[in-house]
Amino acid sequence: LTDPLVAIVAGSKSDEELVQEAASVLERFGVPYQKRVISAHRTPQAAFEFSANAAGRGIKVIIAIAGKAAHLAGVLASGTILPVIGVPAPTSDLGGLDSLLSTVQMPSGVPVATVAIGKAGAHNAALLAVSILSLGDDGLAKMLRDHKSRIADQVASADEEFSSG
Amino acid sequence: LTDPLVAIVAGSKSDEELVQEAASVLERFGVPYQKRVISAHRTPQAAFEFSANAAGRGIKVIIAIAGKAAHLAGVLASGTILPVIGVPAPTSDLGGLDSLLSTVQMPSGVPVATVAIGKAGAHNAALLAVSILSLGDDGLAKMLRDHKSRIADQVASADEEFSSG
Amino acid sequence: LTDPLVAIVAGSKSDEELVQEAASVLERFGVPYQKRVISAHRTPQAAFEFSANAAGRGIKVIIAIAGKAAHLAGVLASGTILPVIGVPAPTSDLGGLDSLLSTVQMPSGVPVATVAIGKAGAHNAALLAVSILSLGDDGLAKMLRDHKSRIADQVASADEEFSSG
Amino acid sequence: LTDPLVAIVAGSKSDEELVQEAASVLERFGVPYQKRVISAHRTPQAAFEFSANAAGRGIKVIIAIAGKAAHLAGVLASGTILPVIGVPAPTSDLGGLDSLLSTVQMPSGVPVATVAIGKAGAHNAALLAVSILSLGDDGLAKMLRDHKSRIADQVASADEEFSSG
Amino acid sequence: LTDPLVAIVAGSKSDEELVQEAASVLERFGVPYQKRVISAHRTPQAAFEFSANAAGRGIKVIIAIAGKAAHLAGVLASGTILPVIGVPAPTSDLGGLDSLLSTVQMPSGVPVATVAIGKAGAHNAALLAVSILSLGDDGLAKMLRDHKSRIADQVASADEEFSSG
Amino acid sequence: LTDPLVAIVAGSKSDEELVQEAASVLERFGVPYQKRVISAHRTPQAAFEFSANAAGRGIKVIIAIAGKAAHLAGVLASGTILPVIGVPAPTSDLGGLDSLLSTVQMPSGVPVATVAIGKAGAHNAALLAVSILSLGDDGLAKMLRDHKSRIADQVASADEEFSSG
Amino acid sequence: LTDPLVAIVAGSKSDEELVQEAASVLERFGVPYQKRVISAHRTPQAAFEFSANAAGRGIKVIIAIAGKAAHLAGVLASGTILPVIGVPAPTSDLGGLDSLLSTVQMPSGVPVATVAIGKAGAHNAALLAVSILSLGDDGLAKMLRDHKSRIADQVASADEEFSSG
Amino acid sequence: LTDPLVAIVAGSKSDEELVQEAASVLERFGVPYQKRVISAHRTPQAAFEFSANAAGRGIKVIIAIAGKAAHLAGVLASGTILPVIGVPAPTSDLGGLDSLLSTVQMPSGVPVATVAIGKAGAHNAALLAVSILSLGDDGLAKMLRDHKSRIADQVASADEEFSSG
Repeated sequence: LTDPLVAIVAGSKSDEELVQEAASVLERFGVPYQKRVISAHRTPQAAFEFSANAAGRGIKVIIAIAGKAAHLAGVLASGTILPVIGVPAPTSDLGGLDSLLSTVQMPSGVPVATVAIGKAGAHNAALLAVSILSLGDDGLAKMLRDHKSRIADQVASADEEFSSG
Repeated sequence: LTDPLVAIVAGSKSDEELVQEAASVLERFGVPYQKRVISAHRTPQAAFEFSANAAGRGIKVIIAIAGKAAHLAGVLASGTILPVIGVPAPTSDLGGLDSLLSTVQMPSGVPVATVAIGKAGAHNAALLAVSILSLGDDGLAKMLRDHKSRIADQVASADEEFSSG
Repeated sequence: LTDPLVAIVAGSKSDEELVQEAASVLERFGVPYQKRVISAHRTPQAAFEFSANAAGRGIKVIIAIAGKAAHLAGVLASGTILPVIGVPAPTSDLGGLDSLLSTVQMPSGVPVATVAIGKAGAHNAALLAVSILSLGDDGLAKMLRDHKSRIADQVASADEEFSSG
Repeated sequence: LTDPLVAIVAGSKSDEELVQEAASVLERFGVPYQKRVISAHRTPQAAFEFSANAAGRGIKVIIAIAGKAAHLAGVLASGTILPVIGVPAPTSDLGGLDSLLSTVQMPSGVPVATVAIGKAGAHNAALLAVSILSLGDDGLAKMLRDHKSRIADQVASADEEFSSG
Repeated sequence: LTDPLVAIVAGSKSDEELVQEAASVLERFGVPYQKRVISAHRTPQAAFEFSANAAGRGIKVIIAIAGKAAHLAGVLASGTILPVIGVPAPTSDLGGLDSLLSTVQMPSGVPVATVAIGKAGAHNAALLAVSILSLGDDGLAKMLRDHKSRIADQVASADEEFSSG
Repeated sequence: LTDPLVAIVAGSKSDEELVQEAASVLERFGVPYQKRVISAHRTPQAAFEFSANAAGRGIKVIIAIAGKAAHLAGVLASGTILPVIGVPAPTSDLGGLDSLLSTVQMPSGVPVATVAIGKAGAHNAALLAVSILSLGDDGLAKMLRDHKSRIADQVASADEEFSSG
Repeated sequence: LTDPLVAIVAGSKSDEELVQEAASVLERFGVPYQKRVISAHRTPQAAFEFSANAAGRGIKVIIAIAGKAAHLAGVLASGTILPVIGVPAPTSDLGGLDSLLSTVQMPSGVPVATVAIGKAGAHNAALLAVSILSLGDDGLAKMLRDHKSRIADQVASADEEFSSG
Repeated sequence: LTDPLVAIVAGSKSDEELVQEAASVLERFGVPYQKRVISAHRTPQAAFEFSANAAGRGIKVIIAIAGKAAHLAGVLASGTILPVIGVPAPTSDLGGLDSLLSTVQMPSGVPVATVAIGKAGAHNAALLAVSILSLGDDGLAKMLRDHKSRIADQVASADEEFSSG
């Protein structure tokens, strides 16, 4: 078994779909990861411990997924020097604007690398983690370059189909 | 010296004006308070300890003042069963909407009693603390009723002046 | 029969689901409550009388649930020194942003303790009421501490399930 | 002395500039008015009495000017069948969006005729009052038609100046 | 046949539900009305003529219902001295915030009496028209006072049912 | 004298700065233009006539600059088949969001080509007019390509200075 | 076969419905067009080449349809002097406000002619393209004038039906 | 001379203050960087080349600072597999909300690591870059841990001063 390099942490079980989106991207790149449910507000001590020990356990990048007054990414970032990527979960009332502002508007000193609201954000969080890891892993860098070509090819195919349609 | 019943906690020194607004209201009511600067992100352990020990030290109500991705009130609320009042600080770019949503949109299980953005909010946070304390203190309740009359009288005076102006 | 300590006041019958959410939390803690429908705009006198007499009838905390130009919490707060908790109801057009701003942006002198929009807010309003009551009731305080542990355990279980999933 | 037909009610003395803007328009049309300061939250009884007695005292239209969680227009409208015009005052943090939504988003049954945020709104509130009064006053109707021509002429002059500039 | 006193003008056929809501309120009060579809952008001349001739045809109040860049109320108001009430129609993308701002933020000189977004707004637009008409019609004023009592009674019934539920 | 090809229409004299910004761009390209002040609400007939006759007078593109409930561009577009470019003017309370939504959210059938809020928008409105005119004017097209190169060179210079700074 | 005069470029296949809306309008006017799928982010080189060569291939107007951080219209506009019309696609979380601001708030020097969010925008984008093309094509201008009459007639029919309904 | 590891790219010279903020943080950590001005819209080819060649020139992290329809970070991210950090610049009209949404709401496939609007964001962008670099540089990791302690100490000092003040 390989030790996880990326931790995907959700603020609640209801964020499972976003966790899976990020996880499936990491799997495609063969990046070992772990999945956690830790709440900044309901299990603050677990958050504290997770964050303090993540680097020591070999984690390189943390992906934090949370909604509403989404403090999870910020709370995890406060306890580690690892890069923390925040995914704002959509919310039924304010469309995720609350999650977005709570995640991105961090004060000087504690950065959170915020991506888009929802599924595209979860997908991109994983790609960003791969991008960061590939700075020290040429194989991963090659896979990422190939992935970029592949999604370009997909758009090109759609273009061809569309142009002649 | 009397032990403080209310703690006014600011996320950074730049929130000092709001702290003073709340403090001056508490002084008017003779409610002992303490002032702290604790950052949810820069001194998470201090936040953790403060929150865990507040009730034990005799604190009854916590007022948390913070801006932007304002996690302070939520983080303090996660560690205590005391009522926590959140004051969203104004922000230069988004007018405090970020602070407001980050403070008020708490998930089930960890309430934050949120008041208005800025100075009116800080003022009202202190009044709300007095209101809570007065449930167990008839003298304070009387002072609060008198205060309510006084501000009504001020409006009435303004009305008189205005009507004849 | 026990006299109610908390009043849950809805601005209209359509807020019933939110009322039930708050009520079920209070029941779990054995806190006696009453349910009312009072409209700040359609039955202003009832609001006025309710608010003026609430403290005298033994009410300690008022929870006001209303949507759109949600004046209910503010109107009730204007007539009492009791702590008033405002729950902004979701709205179909603006997602409850109108309810939130109408509830939280109170001017100096009349605080409303505002919680999140919708069901999480109604749930937390009840917990906040319990938190306030537990300042003078050690039994309740113990129950609240236990509740905090229980929801932490739930997250921990979800975490375990998730980590190994 | 003529009895006032229009009441301009401000929620606080700080709205004086907006009151003057509305007043000066009414003066131009010779419409008798009174100015009041009444707070929906700080002097709710005064609001209640004012509203209940306005029609009896000969008032035909009420202009209510207030900011933030601006409940004044709604509270006055709840106590009278007179048309109530709401002017949302600008606010330093949210630009008056809070005042606007709190004034305009009234529930079924209690309309508030809302105009623009700030000075243009106060100006137009007075013109709207004149428009309503002129339904039963041909002299006023003529003055209003003349006023409309005059402001058209002003734009035409500006146009001439501009075109040749 | 009675000549209409109120004109309900919709910007497009798709606003029919809102038109019916306003119409049914006017019917309840026995106020004769007419329904029109006129587009500020697609039939500007019709708008122009309607507006210029409305007062001459005995119309006292105009209700304009439109969505998105909702110019209808403003365009009608520019051509008449009659009071024009604007109802912002909900929009699928921005929830009617676009309709609201386009209707309410009128510049100095041309007021639009704006009510809430959607069905409650359409309902209240009709009530506001009745309120304006009742300034010169004691019978209507009595009906409006009775209506206010009736809706108060409805809330009181709901309250009774709720309190004992 | 050359007949104007572009009309820059402002809703009020207060938009003069934006008019000048657009005018100075047109001058740089030698495009003859005229400046007008026409209000959709205060001089609707002038708007109507201007719009109906613009094409006949040789105007090819109309630039409409207005703020708040900015109906000018839409009203002009309703009366002509010429392309109408809308510039949302900044507003002190809502930052021009009201102007933007009132200008851009036009219903099917009457397009307005909307550009950015404020000075950049006025500048770009003129460039867009030049772009449209250059479809039928090779000399203008060449000037526009040269202009594009020039602004690229300016950024390149800034880059050089910056890189070595 | 006629060479296309208008290019409709979508940022992804998921924007197909909006593409069809624009296409069907162009077909009604007999304007030859091509459909493309090009992503500003996934196939930047294709965007670059398309934009650089569009004018040379006879394209007169580009319609760019994209959502979220919608850079497509801006990126295409940066590489051509042709008029580029941007259609902000609706987004599930923020209702298309993100698409709108990303499309319209272009800096000085690179205009994008932005239309409404969604289907009405796509429809109007095509009409705007026709309007631009008709500056050099009298037949098209006549068709556009006829189209304007037809949609006026449709509103007039709806009005007739409504008035008598 | 050391080759730069981080590139700070501004969309225009007016973003210089934000560039300096990021630069001064990198200097404190001894991280070699370069400063560039490249416009996604005015010098798209420069953006394209910069992005394509950055990794080859030894750049590890790109910081992109831009405002309004801020496409710079997304455009750079489209051309490289390096992590790109986006700093939304404040804007006078919409407070930077336009910049934020244009930067963060990236579609699946092309992540941008977005930080807060303005100076705090620029500061944190640099810290995030250091955090990413420190994954492969133990010395830098130690410096970052020390920095975290130092800012904690500063808050602690402020706290001490405040508590006794």
